[in-house]
Amino acid sequence: MTRWIAVDWGTTALRASLMEGDTPLETRASDKGMNSLTPEEFEPTLLALADDWVAGPTEVLCCGMVGARQGWVEARYSAVPCPALGTGLTTVPTKDPRLSVRIVPGLKQVTPHADVMRGEETQIAGILRAIPGFDGVACLPGTHTKWCHLSADEVVSFRTVMTGELFATITKQTVLRHSLAGDGWSEDAFLEAVSDALSKPEMLTARLFELRAADLLTGQEAGVARAVLSGLLIGSELAATRPWWLGRDVVITGSGKTTPAYAAALSSQGVTPRILPADAMTYAGLTTARELP
Amino acid sequence: MTRWIAVDWGTTALRASLMEGDTPLETRASDKGMNSLTPEEFEPTLLALADDWVAGPTEVLCCGMVGARQGWVEARYSAVPCPALGTGLTTVPTKDPRLSVRIVPGLKQVTPHADVMRGEETQIAGILRAIPGFDGVACLPGTHTKWCHLSADEVVSFRTVMTGELFATITKQTVLRHSLAGDGWSEDAFLEAVSDALSKPEMLTARLFELRAADLLTGQEAGVARAVLSGLLIGSELAATRPWWLGRDVVITGSGKTTPAYAAALSSQGVTPRILPADAMTYAGLTTARELP
Repeated sequence: MTRWIAVDWGTTALRASLMEGDTPLETRASDKGMNSLTPEEFEPTLLALADDWVAGPTEVLCCGMVGARQGWVEARYSAVPCPALGTGLTTVPTKDPRLSVRIVPGLKQVTPHADVMRGEETQIAGILRAIPGFDGVACLPGTHTKWCHLSADEVVSFRTVMTGELFATITKQTVLRHSLAGDGWSEDAFLEAVSDALSKPEMLTARLFELRAADLLTGQEAGVARAVLSGLLIGSELAATRPWWLGRDVVITGSGKTTPAYAAALSSQGVTPRILPADAMTYAGLTTARELP
Repeated sequence: MTRWIAVDWGTTALRASLMEGDTPLETRASDKGMNSLTPEEFEPTLLALADDWVAGPTEVLCCGMVGARQGWVEARYSAVPCPALGTGLTTVPTKDPRLSVRIVPGLKQVTPHADVMRGEETQIAGILRAIPGFDGVACLPGTHTKWCHLSADEVVSFRTVMTGELFATITKQTVLRHSLAGDGWSEDAFLEAVSDALSKPEMLTARLFELRAADLLTGQEAGVARAVLSGLLIGSELAATRPWWLGRDVVITGSGKTTPAYAAALSSQGVTPRILPADAMTYAGLTTARELP
């Protein structure tokens, strides 16, 4: 029974991989995220995607919003400080007797501020598998970027900054959308905005409308405006999390699009982060989860 | 010809008032904003709303997005420093010979940062009519709040902060919407958040996700969360505009909903603003516009 199924089941997407030991053999994706399913629909949805991978008794390890209260079965938050995978997986009762399904719990923090994560803890477990004994900070850029202080094989504390969601919302839903269209980019404008936001974080919201005005008055390129917006937001995030990354070992684990921006911003502040790919860390974390009793 | 028509024609709404001297006799509103009209539709739209007010030759004074490039006729931005009503009104050719229509220009600023306004300059003219010789700062809260330095009967400079649009967008479009529903409010939480944002402006984006986490973990009331969000955003705005209001005479001219929040926030910092109603300042500003040659 060396083959098993790794499942990353988020709010709006499902991704399952047939695993051999710690190596993915095949990956399939679906848009049947947690948001679109009732609890009894999870098992048939998984089987519809991966039935041919279930040749006999099959272990399935899941992470993500599948474990939320509105998910398949709630995998309650473990409170930090604790190991990345918390205080134990939640076993899911299944109708198909071949399946042995377990869900990784999310993490919660009550003090010094309220915070939660669900899904990223598995990537953190992957980072600790990839770099045993890592003592430092893991930055997981995304819709809700997580900064996690890791020490002695535990998550000591963490902080969520919703930079990705703010960027997407401002780009799509505000008057600035007229001045931010397209995929253009200016690395110089980005780094200057990061520096501005770090030195004058109080100017963040005041500077946003400049992007619209500069377009109306001087036809500023949308690519420059996008880079400035991204730089202001990531710079503000770095200003807020300075105690986390200053003088620390930093690992970045994120998607291809945002990881380089965070890496460049940190490098401009004299921090050289190690970069570990998000997918690989999810596999590694679920592999660790599978080894749990 | 003491009767005339005052028109505030914005992006999504039109409001016309029959005026006798500087006093509104009757006001009518329509949802036919600039966004929904082609240039040739403005005149019939106005007549459909107010034809019975046009008994003979009738002056019509307009402010707002009606003067944008996509509006009725473009009333080009005047560059500050300049009088609130800029360097002259734009006369609109009409098919109906009874109408004499003029549009107030917007204001633009090139340095120290790019900025524009269209509509608020009329309220500023109203403030200067209401308080002749006012030397200080006008704060016009709204979707895009304006801070205007007024001196020697001119707009010296201004700064737009899109606090209102950020609050609306975050409340409606992000994951925080689940934790911000309703109309609840906590004045204590608001003032504490204002103070927090002023003392630690770099924490703004980092603190937003706490509103979601505190709901999930401890069921924080939506009214408290709304007040904290508003306090963080207005506090950040005050942090950005501190050189504008610190030790200055401040007038606030805004709508009923946001004006008290700005007044409370400024009062908590030892500034006691004068409050002048927005509608009255628009009438006063258009009355001044009508007197221009």
